[in-house]
Parts: sequence; C-alpha cells; structure tokens
Amino acid sequence: MESQQAAHKKLYTIHPFLYGLEDSAFKPYSLDKLKKCDIVFITKPHTIAMKYVYDLWLHGIKIIDLSADFRLQEPAVYRKWYGIAHKYPNLLNEAVYGLPELYADRIKKSSLIANPGCYPTCIILGLAPLLNCRLIYPQAIHICAYSGLSGAGRTPRPGNNLFIDAYGNLKPYKMNKHPHIPEIEQELSGLYQDKVEISFIPHLAPTDKGILSTIHVSLQKSADLLALIEVYKKFYKQKPFIRIYDTDKQPELLNVVGTNFCDIGLSLDRDGKTLVVFSVIDNTLKGSAGQAVQNMNLLSGYKET
Amino acid sequence: MESQQAAHKKLYTIHPFLYGLEDSAFKPYSLDKLKKCDIVFITKPHTIAMKYVYDLWLHGIKIIDLSADFRLQEPAVYRKWYGIAHKYPNLLNEAVYGLPELYADRIKKSSLIANPGCYPTCIILGLAPLLNCRLIYPQAIHICAYSGLSGAGRTPRPGNNLFIDAYGNLKPYKMNKHPHIPEIEQELSGLYQDKVEISFIPHLAPTDKGILSTIHVSLQKSADLLALIEVYKKFYKQKPFIRIYDTDKQPELLNVVGTNFCDIGLSLDRDGKTLVVFSVIDNTLKGSAGQAVQNMNLLSGYKET
Amino acid sequence: MESQQAAHKKLYTIHPFLYGLEDSAFKPYSLDKLKKCDIVFITKPHTIAMKYVYDLWLHGIKIIDLSADFRLQEPAVYRKWYGIAHKYPNLLNEAVYGLPELYADRIKKSSLIANPGCYPTCIILGLAPLLNCRLIYPQAIHICAYSGLSGAGRTPRPGNNLFIDAYGNLKPYKMNKHPHIPEIEQELSGLYQDKVEISFIPHLAPTDKGILSTIHVSLQKSADLLALIEVYKKFYKQKPFIRIYDTDKQPELLNVVGTNFCDIGLSLDRDGKTLVVFSVIDNTLKGSAGQAVQNMNLLSGYKET
Amino acid sequence: MESQQAAHKKLYTIHPFLYGLEDSAFKPYSLDKLKKCDIVFITKPHTIAMKYVYDLWLHGIKIIDLSADFRLQEPAVYRKWYGIAHKYPNLLNEAVYGLPELYADRIKKSSLIANPGCYPTCIILGLAPLLNCRLIYPQAIHICAYSGLSGAGRTPRPGNNLFIDAYGNLKPYKMNKHPHIPEIEQELSGLYQDKVEISFIPHLAPTDKGILSTIHVSLQKSADLLALIEVYKKFYKQKPFIRIYDTDKQPELLNVVGTNFCDIGLSLDRDGKTLVVFSVIDNTLKGSAGQAVQNMNLLSGYKET
Repeated sequence: MESQQAAHKKLYTIHPFLYGLEDSAFKPYSLDKLKKCDIVFITKPHTIAMKYVYDLWLHGIKIIDLSADFRLQEPAVYRKWYGIAHKYPNLLNEAVYGLPELYADRIKKSSLIANPGCYPTCIILGLAPLLNCRLIYPQAIHICAYSGLSGAGRTPRPGNNLFIDAYGNLKPYKMNKHPHIPEIEQELSGLYQDKVEISFIPHLAPTDKGILSTIHVSLQKSADLLALIEVYKKFYKQKPFIRIYDTDKQPELLNVVGTNFCDIGLSLDRDGKTLVVFSVIDNTLKGSAGQAVQNMNLLSGYKET
Repeated sequence: MESQQAAHKKLYTIHPFLYGLEDSAFKPYSLDKLKKCDIVFITKPHTIAMKYVYDLWLHGIKIIDLSADFRLQEPAVYRKWYGIAHKYPNLLNEAVYGLPELYADRIKKSSLIANPGCYPTCIILGLAPLLNCRLIYPQAIHICAYSGLSGAGRTPRPGNNLFIDAYGNLKPYKMNKHPHIPEIEQELSGLYQDKVEISFIPHLAPTDKGILSTIHVSLQKSADLLALIEVYKKFYKQKPFIRIYDTDKQPELLNVVGTNFCDIGLSLDRDGKTLVVFSVIDNTLKGSAGQAVQNMNLLSGYKET
Repeated sequence: MESQQAAHKKLYTIHPFLYGLEDSAFKPYSLDKLKKCDIVFITKPHTIAMKYVYDLWLHGIKIIDLSADFRLQEPAVYRKWYGIAHKYPNLLNEAVYGLPELYADRIKKSSLIANPGCYPTCIILGLAPLLNCRLIYPQAIHICAYSGLSGAGRTPRPGNNLFIDAYGNLKPYKMNKHPHIPEIEQELSGLYQDKVEISFIPHLAPTDKGILSTIHVSLQKSADLLALIEVYKKFYKQKPFIRIYDTDKQPELLNVVGTNFCDIGLSLDRDGKTLVVFSVIDNTLKGSAGQAVQNMNLLSGYKET
Repeated sequence: MESQQAAHKKLYTIHPFLYGLEDSAFKPYSLDKLKKCDIVFITKPHTIAMKYVYDLWLHGIKIIDLSADFRLQEPAVYRKWYGIAHKYPNLLNEAVYGLPELYADRIKKSSLIANPGCYPTCIILGLAPLLNCRLIYPQAIHICAYSGLSGAGRTPRPGNNLFIDAYGNLKPYKMNKHPHIPEIEQELSGLYQDKVEISFIPHLAPTDKGILSTIHVSLQKSADLLALIEVYKKFYKQKPFIRIYDTDKQPELLNVVGTNFCDIGLSLDRDGKTLVVFSVIDNTLKGSAGQAVQNMNLLSGYKET
C-alpha cells in the first residue's frame, strides 16, 4: 500500500483494526514500483487524481480510479462542476463508467475504469430499468437521499461532521448543487437516449454507513405495480448484487449495511401514475470499495462475486 | 392527572424524570370530577377518544383532543382511513382543526379543538403559503418525511421500534397508506379551495425526536427564490412559532428539537420551476403537546406563547 | 437450519439480509435428521437447552451448546442462579468450558462444549494472565462493563430495549445479580486455584454491538506496566484472536466490532498498586457465534481461524 | 453577551436555535462595560481565564468563573496539572468551590466562585456523604465514568469527536491523567479531613449529553443498604437538585438529561463490604451552566431553583 500523505506511517495508525495484525507501513508513492502491477486502484482526491491516472495509463497499467476525474465525458461539464479545466480531456474517451450491472462488457475490455460515486450508484441503479425502458418522463425526477456520515469524510468540518453536530440531526445540504448530479444525469441520459434532468436533495442522517434514496417519478402511462417489479427483475436478471423486493416489504438500510448489495423496492401512488423507487446501498462497499473490487474481478476475468 | 390504564400507579412509573419530585398517582377516570374543569385534554387512542370527547362536550367543557377522531370533517373519509364508522358525525362540524397559525380566530371561539397530528403539522405549515396563494399545482406534491422514533409510540413492535431494529437504520413505511394523509389533504384543499392530492412517504430515522419533511412541488409559473421567501414571511408575520429561513441556511432538526418552533426553508431547482420546501418540527412539542398548550392559551384568551 | 419456533417460516423473515439470497425455510426440529450430523450447535434458551443436548449427546453427536446449561460444574450453583434443578448433573462433568484461548487441548477431545457467555468471554480473557500468575488479590476485582443492545435480545421489554428507552441512555442493571457471575467466578477461581470473588456491574450503552469491560484490580506487589504487558503477551502468544495493546493506545469498541478479536489494554494507577484492565469484544462474534465457530474448528481438527 | 473570538458575529451563527429570535451580535470584550455589572460569568479557557477574573475582581465585581483556574487551592497542584504557574496565587484563597449542595453558606458571601467541572460535580456529590461521615476507606475509590460527547467540546479532534469516530464506540481516555482529578481529590479530602486518593477512568459514550459515574468503594464496616440510603437522604435533605433513589430503581441518564438534577443510587455487593455508587448528571446543566445559575441565585440572595 502506497500513500504520499501517510508515507512511512504504520498502516494501523490510519486503520486501527489492523493493530497487532499488520505491522507494515505505508510506502511512499513510486511510479517505478507501481509499473510492475497489473491493476492499480487510485484513491486520490478529485482534480488531483488525474495526473496519477495519466502517468500510469501511459505505462499500460489498468486503472480503477475512485475519484470523479474520469466519470464525466464532457470536459465542459467537468469544468462547470469541479471548477478547473480537465488536463487530459482525450483520456476521458478511454474511461468506462464502472457500474458493473450496466456496463460489464465494456468494463472487461477497458484499461481505465471510473468507479462511480456513492449517490450515483444508488440512484442510477434505482432508475435504470425505468429510463432504459422509457417508462417514465425524463423530467420531474425528484430524489430525496439520506446518507450516513461516512459519506462526509474524515476531514473535520465543524457544523457538519462532529459528533455533536450530527447526532440526533437530520439536514439537507448542497441542494441541487452536489457534484454527483452531472454523472447521474449523464448516465441516465445515456440509458434514456435523450436528456434527463433530476432534482437531487442529499441529506445527512445520524448513522455511520448507508444511503437510502427515495425517488418520485411520473409514469408515461399507468402501470401495474407487479408488472413494474417484473421489469426490474428482468432487467437485473443474473446480477448477483441487485435484489428487487416484492410488495411484501421495502428496502431498509440494515438489510444492506456490511454487504455489496443494492436493494430496490417500488411503491405505486394512489393516482396510479406516480411511482416511488427506494434504493439502498452501503456507501462504503457497493458505493465505493466493494464496487471497485467488483470491477477488478471483471477486469481480471474472475466472477464478479 | 387521570388515566384508566395506569390508575393508582405513581406518575413516576410512567414518567421516570418525576421520581422524587412528584409522589402522586394517576387517578382513575371520573366524568364527575372532570366536569368541574374548564378545559380538558384527551389523549386516548383514535376510535376510543370520541366517546370521552362526546360525554365531556355534552357537559359544556372545552376539549382539546389529541386523537384523530375529530380532525376529519367527512364521516366517510374517517371510515375509510380508520376502519370504523364515526359514532358522533354531527359533532364533527363543531370541531376546529387546531393549527393556531392558520385558524387562531376559530380556535378562540371553539369548544372542541382537534389537535393536529405530527406529520400534518409539519407538512401543512410547510405548504400553506404556496397553496393559499395558488403558486403551485395541486398535484405532484411529493413528500419525503423522516421522523424520529418517539413518533412510533411505546408499544413494542418487533422489527420496528426495538433499539436493534432502528439503530443505524433508515426505512420507509406505510407508503401512501399513512392515516395522516386525509387530514393533510383536507386542510391543503381548504387552503387551495380545490382538491389537493399528495404523495406521502414517511420514513423512520434513528433518532428520538423531530420530523424533517422534504417536499418537491411544481410552481405554476417560474418565480424568484427571494420573492417566494417573502411570501412565506408575509404569510407567517406575527406568528411567534414559525421561522422562515433566508437562503444562507436550511432547516435542520437540531435547530428545533426541544422547542415549539416550525422552521421552514426553500430551495429552487435549476429548472426554476421545481421548488423544494423543507419543514422541521419537534414532533413531541409543536407536533403534539406543545401545540396543545398553544391551543389552550388561545382558548383561555392568553398569548399563544 | 432447524427451528421449532419458526418452523416452516422462510429464513429471511428472521434474517432480512438473506432476502433474495436464500429462499429455504426453517425446518422443524428432528432428532432423526440431526443424528446424521457430526457437530450440532444448540441455541435454545437456558433451562430448555439441556434436554436437547442430552438427547443428541446420547447418540454420540458432538455438541456446541450456546446456552448456559452446561457452563457451571456445580449443580447447586446452577440451581441458585438459574432457579431450577439441573436435570442431567452427571453430564456436567463431560462438558468443557469453550474458551479456546484457555482450554484448546480439552476442547479438541471433548464431545460437549459449553460456549461461554458474552460478558464472561470479555472478562475472563481480560483477567486470566493476572490470576493464573497470581499477580493480583482474588478479591476487590471491580468490574464495570458496558454492552450494546444486541446483548439484550429481541424480546421486547419496555423500559429497556425499545429505541426510545435506550437511545441517549446509559444505565446499570442487574447489579451483582447477573447470571454470568457464577461462570466468571468459576473460571477465574480455576485459574487462580483458589476462590475468586468479583463485583460485577453491567450497563447498557446506546449502540448495537460490543462490550467494553473496565476492571480495577489490586496488585499483590507493585509492578512495572511494561512488565505486566509482557506477561499478557507471553500468556496469549500464538493466540490469533487476542491483541495486547502497548501503552500508546487503549482498546475501544470500534477496533473490534465486526471481528472475532478480544483486545486488551492495561493502565497502572498513580499509586503503582491499582491496575486497570480494559477488555473489548464484539459480543455477537467473539462473545457468541464467532467463538462457537472457533470451537467447531478445534473440534474438527481445523485451524482456529 | 461579549466574546472576543466571535466579536461582531451574530449570536445565531454560534447558537443556531436563536435564528430568527435574536438578531444581535456578540460584543467585543470591554472591561469598562462589564464594570457596571453586578455579577459576571467568565467562560474563557483554563490558563486564560485568570487574567479576566483578576481584572474584574479588582473592580469589585462578583464573578462566576467556569474555568478551572480558581478551583485548586494549592498553586503547586495547579502547576502540576495545568502546566503553568498560577499568576494570581493570592486570589486562590478568595475563591469558593461552587458546589451549592456543599458550600451554599460560603458561596452566598463570596465574590469569586469557581464553578466545578462536570465530572467533579457528578463524583463529589456521589461520594460526599460517605466521606463526610467517614464510612469508607479513603483509598481504593475506583471510578468508572462515561460522558457524552458534549463534554469533548467543539474543537475538532480527529480520532475522537468526529461523528464516525464516536458513533457506536466506547473508549477510555486520559486514564488517571484527567485534569479533573486534583479538584475531586481536594474536595473529597476536605470532606474526609484527611488525604483521599481516587482512581479515575473517564470514557466517551456515543451520546450527546450526560455523565454516569459508577464508583466502587470499600466500607469501613459492613452496613445495611437501607441505612446507607438514609445517610444520603439526610445529608441532602432540602437540596432541591439532588434525588436519592430507593432500592427499587437505579439512576440512568435519561432521568436527568435536560434537567439540573444529580440522581444518586447505591448497590451493595454480595460481600456486604463493597458499595457501588451511581451518580448521573446532565453535564451541560448541573455539570456546567445550570450550576452556574444556581450559584448566581445564591450570590443574589434568590432561591437556588
């Protein structure tokens, strides 16, 4: 394991559960050493990661990048949401958006996987069948998502991620300004083959792990709930990490925390036209590292699981 | 304090914080004794409360009923949502829906106040200015609400309100089936003077107190966010328990827990047509007992506060 | 999987995370079918389990019993703490107390393993080196232990394990009356080869998993902290699930939750005679099922891990 | 309200619940203006507060200092635990330790009240009757205390007070090194009229408010539990904020959170010689601001409540 920030520090100083198990230290970043790897995971922050990705990619190494730097296909969109010009716009075409349930074939052949963000994983998987089958209108997609605090990172931000700020609290943040919006709209638009626009309101919930998205959408024509559930089951057939719920229960965080599952449920409103989609993941697994391993398995020709 | 269920038990067995302060016991229910009161609070469960309300009302006592039994004006609607026929349909006309910010004048003159439910308080106050001023469409009102566990009561329901069911969990429940729906639609329809329909998805959040409602609505015509905030400020002028937020911050639970406030904030979507309303209350105060006291003050001719 | 209580119910009705993964149902208890197993885990309640253990044991099956029924060697002690006479007192001599770190050799040869309780696992492992080496006095062992709510079971007990009883609460319970006391004293007395008496105060903490025991003991003679840490390291050499902390850090729940580790740390008081032992486990793993698997591995001749 | 750090900032930026209620800003510190007050509360940090206290005291103003700067009578002890020499050692003699239940008479006549720390309030009140009546030995006082995170302050300290560090965690800290130790030993020694030594292990619990101390002590001679409870009731007779529990229940955090109470319970061990004292407070009220107001009432000649 290499880390510039923590170079030479023992691994257990950052990951206390390794105490007594693993006495090695983080190594400083070394391009020479990494060149000998087949696949490298990059976990640098957005806007910083692209340089590392580029250097390794030039040496023919397969890369799974957990930053947002190669998720957006349009340099102009990247500039708008991340505030700087992309330095390697040509490399954007090489990158595949790493949602294995949607793009497994392209992931297998790719050399640069842009691992999706946590909210996008939860929301795109929740909406993909509806948009792919053109069952809902591409506007009026109203997303109310709640995330545990692990999504807020380890950098102290008083008023937000201190225990006494978040304990017993519920709050919206970055309403319609969250940088995950463009990747969600890009992927949903690709599935619908036309422009899709969302309203995305993220919130913080007083727990550590998990995201629950509650999404109101408008059906293009009235439909039967059981038929809609069948659409989902068919769309995600043979996808080992997706579970579609029957009408007897609804997704909840505790069913997925600690797993790589994305659980999806549906509720049809009394008007027969408004559908509510519930989608839950553990943001630290399916929304991040777990999905990265899924992508690695595809890249390596292993089974996803 | 009278209680049939807990008659003769010490008050502190139900309310432990009274230990050492108050050694008296609950008294058994006695119509004769209550007849001497000016105002009586009734906290019986739905479908049970109506009998007590009727008996006391016949004796000319002013009543603040915390059950749902006199919140709905239409006996047919009551039957549909509560499963039994209302026994005193004529008395429904006497009841005033006890939201002081909307109906203070009628509350002052009334002898029977139907104290609103917790979700309805939060949601009706959040939407009243928009519907009263006919700024939004009366359909496509998409409500995603989260409540702490105090809203789930003290009756054990495994899978729901045990600590290990709720800790670290987020879950939707009673989607579009919650019995608070008819009172919300009744009051919103009254404000709009035409039929209003909502989609209401309540959720449980892992905390004790508070409700946060995130509500997507569609503006009838594009509007400026600051102008909309002014509409709210004007509508709630001189209402001591309503706080309208400027654009520099958004409501969050910790700002209202332990208070009788309802805090409201607005966010306008990128399309300029979709508005999101955030409304927060402490369900145990503004959503219940606190509001009952507010109503008592109005009934008695005191200041609301 | 067999269950009398839940016979014919789908597994996922009790374990929701299995939804979509495992569609089989619990089978009714059948001695005939279980007779074909090599090793059977029994998870019946105390006082009920002994009958099942006895029946299976008669048929030569190796048993790991998670109840308390075969943990105490003295029938009189069992009667005192569990309120009924033991029906199979002769079988008590066959049982081995299933703490692999202390009794691996005997466990390997045994046919009846009494899997320890959660508090006893945490406390006995924390004190074993001190008593085995006769470094502390066998009285004045003051134990203050905190457990998450998973230790309180799924049976609703209002005032205790409802969310609103436990959230934000800390409370002692069963002070010096907890039925884990006799097994702790039995095992510690065995290690010290003389009578050991403890004062044991369990508490509930507002979390789901984990036990932290803080134990004050009195050294028979002043000792150096580093020397005491070495005693522990030597005592637990080659024990893969025990981690002894150096003086630079102290055990905390988050380091063990989700693992089968028992982490132990020491702090020496300013007087040089009072030692404080900190011991933490995840009660749902090392304190229960994880340890049962460790025992199964020993019984089967596999590596513990 | 004056504040140097936050001078000219709106009050609600620090205390969000004031939003909409109070539009005034913190004023910069001004000795001239404060000179006109009768009583001033000082909430500066330890080692900084003493200068402000001294300046105001010189002008004859009564002071309630919430820092530790005037709690310790011995300059040498202050230097040892706080790391700097005290600049106004002569003023230490003027200060009264502000525990109203013990020192009301002296507080009334004083001009400088050193408001006690949160742990000391909880622990000294829990032990005062036993030491004052010389019922226990002055050594072997083993204190295991748990505090919510509000005790850890608002300064971010990664690894400690971030939500993801503390959520679901229990951990000891500053074992036998906490700076509250000397004031506890000073006050207990005064009550016992001889040197008292404690072992004090503070812990963090995953909640916001409250401290629960579990204290093992050794009785000088065997005693009856009911008699000991009577000693406490007599000692704290007419003390409105102390509640002594009978044997039918034990203190728990939720009984005091949001109040100025200190609740105390006792449990006698099976040996008849080891007593366990449970003491709980809300550290943000009785352990801090609430007690400061109690002291102000005494200084002003009002009733304590």
